[in-house]
Amino acid sequence: MASLKRLLIGSPMETKRLKHEKLPKWKALAVFSSDALSSVAYATEEILLVLMLLGTSVFFYSLPIALAILGLLLIVTLSYRQIIYAFPSGGGAYVVARDHLSTTTSLVAGAALMIDYVLTVAVSISSGVAALTSAFPSLLSWKVEIAVALVLLLMILNLRGITESATVFAYPTYLFVISVLVLIVVGGWQLWHEGWHGFNYQEHASSEHFFASGYGTFILLRAFASGCSAMTGVEAISNGVPSFRPDSSKNAAITMGWMSVLLGTMFLGITILAAGFGVTPTDHKTVISQIGHHVFGNSVFFYLFQMITMLILVLAANTSFAGFPQLTSIVANDRFLPRSLAARGDRLVFSNGIILLSVLAIILIIVFRGETHSLIPLYAVGVFLSFTIGQWGMVRKIWGDQEQRSAATLATITIGMIVTGLVTMITVIAKFTQGAWLVIISIPLLVIMFYKIRAHYDKLGEQLKLDEQEWEHREKIVKPKVIIPISGVSKLVAQSVQYARSISDDITAISIVFHEEEEQKLRAKWEKFYPDVELKVIYSPYRTILSPMLDYINQIERETEGAPITILMPQFIVKKWWHTLLHNQTAIFLRFFLILKKDIVIATMPYHLKE
Amino acid sequence: MASLKRLLIGSPMETKRLKHEKLPKWKALAVFSSDALSSVAYATEEILLVLMLLGTSVFFYSLPIALAILGLLLIVTLSYRQIIYAFPSGGGAYVVARDHLSTTTSLVAGAALMIDYVLTVAVSISSGVAALTSAFPSLLSWKVEIAVALVLLLMILNLRGITESATVFAYPTYLFVISVLVLIVVGGWQLWHEGWHGFNYQEHASSEHFFASGYGTFILLRAFASGCSAMTGVEAISNGVPSFRPDSSKNAAITMGWMSVLLGTMFLGITILAAGFGVTPTDHKTVISQIGHHVFGNSVFFYLFQMITMLILVLAANTSFAGFPQLTSIVANDRFLPRSLAARGDRLVFSNGIILLSVLAIILIIVFRGETHSLIPLYAVGVFLSFTIGQWGMVRKIWGDQEQRSAATLATITIGMIVTGLVTMITVIAKFTQGAWLVIISIPLLVIMFYKIRAHYDKLGEQLKLDEQEWEHREKIVKPKVIIPISGVSKLVAQSVQYARSISDDITAISIVFHEEEEQKLRAKWEKFYPDVELKVIYSPYRTILSPMLDYINQIERETEGAPITILMPQFIVKKWWHTLLHNQTAIFLRFFLILKKDIVIATMPYHLKE
Repeated sequence: MASLKRLLIGSPMETKRLKHEKLPKWKALAVFSSDALSSVAYATEEILLVLMLLGTSVFFYSLPIALAILGLLLIVTLSYRQIIYAFPSGGGAYVVARDHLSTTTSLVAGAALMIDYVLTVAVSISSGVAALTSAFPSLLSWKVEIAVALVLLLMILNLRGITESATVFAYPTYLFVISVLVLIVVGGWQLWHEGWHGFNYQEHASSEHFFASGYGTFILLRAFASGCSAMTGVEAISNGVPSFRPDSSKNAAITMGWMSVLLGTMFLGITILAAGFGVTPTDHKTVISQIGHHVFGNSVFFYLFQMITMLILVLAANTSFAGFPQLTSIVANDRFLPRSLAARGDRLVFSNGIILLSVLAIILIIVFRGETHSLIPLYAVGVFLSFTIGQWGMVRKIWGDQEQRSAATLATITIGMIVTGLVTMITVIAKFTQGAWLVIISIPLLVIMFYKIRAHYDKLGEQLKLDEQEWEHREKIVKPKVIIPISGVSKLVAQSVQYARSISDDITAISIVFHEEEEQKLRAKWEKFYPDVELKVIYSPYRTILSPMLDYINQIERETEGAPITILMPQFIVKKWWHTLLHNQTAIFLRFFLILKKDIVIATMPYHLKE
Repeated sequence: MASLKRLLIGSPMETKRLKHEKLPKWKALAVFSSDALSSVAYATEEILLVLMLLGTSVFFYSLPIALAILGLLLIVTLSYRQIIYAFPSGGGAYVVARDHLSTTTSLVAGAALMIDYVLTVAVSISSGVAALTSAFPSLLSWKVEIAVALVLLLMILNLRGITESATVFAYPTYLFVISVLVLIVVGGWQLWHEGWHGFNYQEHASSEHFFASGYGTFILLRAFASGCSAMTGVEAISNGVPSFRPDSSKNAAITMGWMSVLLGTMFLGITILAAGFGVTPTDHKTVISQIGHHVFGNSVFFYLFQMITMLILVLAANTSFAGFPQLTSIVANDRFLPRSLAARGDRLVFSNGIILLSVLAIILIIVFRGETHSLIPLYAVGVFLSFTIGQWGMVRKIWGDQEQRSAATLATITIGMIVTGLVTMITVIAKFTQGAWLVIISIPLLVIMFYKIRAHYDKLGEQLKLDEQEWEHREKIVKPKVIIPISGVSKLVAQSVQYARSISDDITAISIVFHEEEEQKLRAKWEKFYPDVELKVIYSPYRTILSPMLDYINQIERETEGAPITILMPQFIVKKWWHTLLHNQTAIFLRFFLILKKDIVIATMPYHLKE
């Protein structure tokens, strides 16, 4: 086991090696933006999938919806650029809300963010596998297995600790950006020459009755909400300001601008091409792969493009493997999550958080059969909720800070907060029945769980706190009464009696027999070796050990009136694991039960067999 | 859990209630013969299934094969009647071989018998389900599930202890015997009137070339070997002599006679009807159900007949639930199997043996998809091997006993032994590739396992034996050095130090820190409460607890030169199970590891949280 662990995750690392690499802008863009940029691989498709409810004739509406999302992106970018300057120490919505709003609000943000991180892994990996199966349809029947294997691969890589190698991550991100830009340029040129042969505004007339009934408008809102999945991850740069080279705020703000421009360009370009080429979403080919196929034909470029898309999506999933464990460790340090999530593993990463994230993502992938569009409705709610809370916290912080309080900054962030708040509500309403309800239920449940965990730790602290005053009146020292459960006279028992004599003068051996006649035999043997040690033999008519033993201990407790009792359990330790099957494990059950129920010391005296 | 157990298997029973009911002949016949008698439900079909390899034209050969098996039955019955008189204390092949042949031979017999018992359950239950699905074909797709459920039902009933209610078992056995006799009489009458319309000797000409090549003869031998499954369980009465009312030997011998006559009549009758009616085995209707359908038509009698057949087969499986745990408990008492198989559960039955049998039978049923004819090739080998060894042991016993040594008895049993030995060889050869090889491999593997287990127990006994001479030179009593691992100063630690003081004067608290700066803080607090107790702080750069702790203990061991060491582990016990998730379980790992590796006492000091 230990050597398998070493092979997979490498040798342990010293705490002192914990340091932060400072990134130049071009690297930081790659590290922090893969999540946001990669979402163009599925966002357009999610819009079209919703619009299909009204028929392909309304596909033209994908363009105004994309423009609306670009407007939203602009507002959020402006807001977060202000936040980068106002809060250069970084920290996500949880920390901001904790420090500037209320605990409950911060926990809501924390819950939303955690759900988000898990969904980022599930959605990105599912979408990455879809990129693969679009190129190689024969892999379709293995998509869940491939997705799970990819999550496990990311888990192992992250347990090794891969944050150091940021350079490695830069290439796929830029490869993806360049490929998509080439796709848009070449595709645009083709569209210009071939003419617009996709869906257009004229066809829309046939679907006008939908809009009259209001149903159409509702579907448009839902398509907008689905398209908002393009916005996931745009806040990552603002959380990572300390990782930038100085002047870090300025550099981060510039990078944020680049990122938004790239994201907006790619998203709009892909949406236009989809509409222009008349691409219809199908079960086995993604929209972006259909565009790729249209532009590159069946050439090697098409396959290359699919592989690059898959790579960037896996990389996007990987960002959660940094974010989620970091967040849970902060929340765990605030004692709202189990302490084990706050401890660094031997490779200096938060191993338990990484494993928890992987398990949750794998469950989601399996439950939703690796279908990106089944997961999307759960996605945007958490993202926009944490955007809103994060910006709200910043508004409160800046408001309270006399020096920074600038009307322009406040106004920008407030607008961002209001708009993202509205989008949150739209998302909840438009996608409630599609799965958003699951998130709406989960967030309060998680918050209740956080509070319950905190309450346990608080009570624990109170109960264990050593009071100096109390300490003064400590009891006098009384030697314990030692009880040795035995089943015969052996070297093991001899060793135990020897030890018992070293710690006390009051020793009783106790043996439970199933046949009354066994007592005489045992007693005779005992007298020969230990005439000075009391032997208590109990006949158990029902052949149980636990209950007569417990009765006896209860009786001793009454008799000794609170003096300490120690059960000394002789236990031989076998040499080979399968030998364990050859022995009754009564001692283990007895120990487990007594520790749970009784305030007495249980000492185990091991005797290691040599063969 | 405990209450579920009580609901399923009832309240515990006292050891004193263990007694043996003495049975009248008619009850004993039912109790001991259900296994043997029920085999007529599948034996004829197994013959026909093998003959089908040569085509239905050779089905007529089922008659001479049945006659050969009747001859075999006669020889075995005569032999076992002698054994009943010569060895009235009963006991199967294992005990006879152990007492009168060699240990290895007895273990071979034991292994063969155990395999047999498991196969009896698997074959009888599968065949019982086939009786059910022949009447209700819609249940065919559930046959594995139904078979597993029946095994579980038998398991629960036997864990409750059902041996007392022998009367209940008598009815289905007699119902089955009467039904089959009615079937034979009515069927015979029909055959007489309708004329022989099945396969006959004249048709055989077409298959003569098979026999010229020797292949045909080989298939006939294989058909014979398959038909020998009719003989399983005929020895049961000879093992159960002590359960008969006095004069038990005479009564048992009479019962054995009846049983053989009934078995022979039923088997021959069914085989004749199958041949006469021209029944061909199919996948979904058993041969006996086809005869039943032919004789009773679609009337209620047909369905009744199927239900009775199923009942007797389930009852036959039930005999293994008495035999297998009994045998494994005897072998376990000889220390060739884990001790836990020798212990009676709280309902006085050998619960572990019952559970083991059920698990093994369920595995067989699942692996062989509940197909009787896939299991049959594994069956007869073990049966006839144990017949042979049992009779061999009896020959040796009687030979050595001057009083009993009668030439007639010896000759009868010797003939039985030789014939069953021959049949064993025929079975092995004729069915080797069909699955008999599995049994041939398993028996020596089981025997090796038996010896390995015995070797472990023997070595254990030697290592633990308390030598009186050795005992005289016992060491002088030295108080242990107590080490208390702590992570802070708390009530839990206070309680542990208090206890440590009561058993020793040499106490060290040890704390492992992950950051060097933690030491000062801890030390300051410690000095305030325990200026007189040594505190050792170890900095662990790799954030592990186990290895620095172990290094420290190794160092102490060297320093103290063999003086006893006690690790006192403070451990708080949470109130609700889920609280366990909120705490690192380092203490448990530490304790587990130290006990495995070190010769030191590990004492746990529990501190029960109140909330």
